[in-house]
Amino acid sequence: MIIDCHGHYTTAPAELQKFRDAQIAGLKAGLDVPLNAQEEISDDQIRSSLENAQLKLQRARGTDLTIFSPRASAMAHHIGNETTSQRWTRACNDLIHRVCLLYPDNFVGVCQLPQSPGVPPASSAAELERCVTELGFIGCNLNPDPSGGHWNSPPLTDRYWYPFYEKMVELDVPAMVHVSSSCNPNFHATGAHYINADTTAFMQFLTADLFKDFPTLRFIIPHGGGAVPYHWGRYRGLAQDLKRPLLGDHVLKNVFFDTCVYHLPGIELLLKVIPIDNILFGSEMVGAVRGIDPETDQYFDDTKRYLDALNLSESDRHKIFEGNARKVFPRLRAG
Amino acid sequence: MIIDCHGHYTTAPAELQKFRDAQIAGLKAGLDVPLNAQEEISDDQIRSSLENAQLKLQRARGTDLTIFSPRASAMAHHIGNETTSQRWTRACNDLIHRVCLLYPDNFVGVCQLPQSPGVPPASSAAELERCVTELGFIGCNLNPDPSGGHWNSPPLTDRYWYPFYEKMVELDVPAMVHVSSSCNPNFHATGAHYINADTTAFMQFLTADLFKDFPTLRFIIPHGGGAVPYHWGRYRGLAQDLKRPLLGDHVLKNVFFDTCVYHLPGIELLLKVIPIDNILFGSEMVGAVRGIDPETDQYFDDTKRYLDALNLSESDRHKIFEGNARKVFPRLRAG
Repeated sequence: MIIDCHGHYTTAPAELQKFRDAQIAGLKAGLDVPLNAQEEISDDQIRSSLENAQLKLQRARGTDLTIFSPRASAMAHHIGNETTSQRWTRACNDLIHRVCLLYPDNFVGVCQLPQSPGVPPASSAAELERCVTELGFIGCNLNPDPSGGHWNSPPLTDRYWYPFYEKMVELDVPAMVHVSSSCNPNFHATGAHYINADTTAFMQFLTADLFKDFPTLRFIIPHGGGAVPYHWGRYRGLAQDLKRPLLGDHVLKNVFFDTCVYHLPGIELLLKVIPIDNILFGSEMVGAVRGIDPETDQYFDDTKRYLDALNLSESDRHKIFEGNARKVFPRLRAG
Repeated sequence: MIIDCHGHYTTAPAELQKFRDAQIAGLKAGLDVPLNAQEEISDDQIRSSLENAQLKLQRARGTDLTIFSPRASAMAHHIGNETTSQRWTRACNDLIHRVCLLYPDNFVGVCQLPQSPGVPPASSAAELERCVTELGFIGCNLNPDPSGGHWNSPPLTDRYWYPFYEKMVELDVPAMVHVSSSCNPNFHATGAHYINADTTAFMQFLTADLFKDFPTLRFIIPHGGGAVPYHWGRYRGLAQDLKRPLLGDHVLKNVFFDTCVYHLPGIELLLKVIPIDNILFGSEMVGAVRGIDPETDQYFDDTKRYLDALNLSESDRHKIFEGNARKVFPRLRAG
């Protein structure tokens, strides 16, 4: 079985975006548009939004199950206030739930959180609990920067985040560290902000003792871990200079990387330096890069192809494509 | 000849830091401490600060000339005001000049700039001109985020920066894109802020047409280009999705990467995906990572060793260690 740990519903029916547009228009007029203002979306609309996109690509690439969450760039936690974010999050998560009900063999849900700048992460615990216990979701996407590129929340290792981590531990679900769109003109979302957030989160984990306080807390750092594997020597060296424990003991029991790296040399590097037990197959499909690589005539984001080219042992292959995902997402096992 | 394009005077005599401390104390009292408040530093003090550090390592590693600039983390453009930054910058650059006079075969200068949050980059042009025309410097370090981790300046491709670029072009000197310390607790300086800035700058260059306006402007992106080579497929794919030209035509005539990547697999990747003409040997020595790698028993930052392990052709070797530096820093040729 091949589990893709990183897929977003980037192709959702237009009614979802219409609701978002109404929310944003409402904010300008000082209104919080209610959730029931959303136009109904039919099962057929959902099917057709997936059949020619994620499902077609699953079939073409030979993958089975996608761990599926709302479009990351559209989370945009910086827009509006806490109510705005709660309603938008609920609309997005409920739609993921419908996808999972329609295609239980193809998708399992990971939720967006109703984060909002300045609002304590504890306020996201209720939506996480709803999604996990009522909708059968198996994890969440946690945004380390709800401001959208201004980075004015405390680091992920600050006690500010602890009440939310307590809920994650209680429910035994991991978080993918995933920022959203950037309203800072310095940062292109998928080309800079995403990758920077990955690198930033890893260094936060390296410099703090979060996992002493939460030994079972688990994070996936997406996009192949940002810059981290490429600079693995730098991180090993910084940990040593800073008198931190070895990264294997200190961080890698709790932190995992996906394989969203869109060329063979990058995937080769990832597998060379990061332990196999810490790598989860992911493609971010349909996502950040949608084109076909003229150098290979294949989709840039067909990351399975790079892994297939590496001649992995059967055991390593199983870990990356399935086993590690089942360990990091234990609720998947139960599903 | 082996030219290291990235060295900082991290071992400067304590008198320099004393002046900085006096500046910072003065700011609290509402005073701008004058430059002549600095205690005199003798030639012997300078010699002894280098003999057992950069010079010893140059000899041990078999490198010849270091393109040398003030300590990057100490630039701290966010401290104080424009006057503070001008005086501190002048003190740092003048000391680099003395190093270069004492050891003309070992060091050539690159200057810090007197940037300050909210102060237009044009204000840095005079110090660049002084350093190049009076002190014989061959380039500068340009901080894309003088706020120290709040990223509230316009992107490097904004016209805001153009007056400074005009001076760079006039003097025919490149800039290394180099942030300083971070006052944002989210970003560890050398583990996150530096690498993020590298990635951010590259994506800014990719999305804009800066090099149409300045065809001869040249930037070095340090730390091996941040996350860029590891995600080279992503950047090629984003450029294609965004209908930008091929990166070779669009960015790589003007943008170069150093080799400050502290393990062999990272250097291997860099050389595999980035054209040889765009790679300049650098070590950041004595810098971000000072320890010895227990896996190799060699210094993490002895980047020459990784290159030596790669069996480069004589022509490629010459480009990386000398030829490319002479092209990017044409004033080096004249020196």
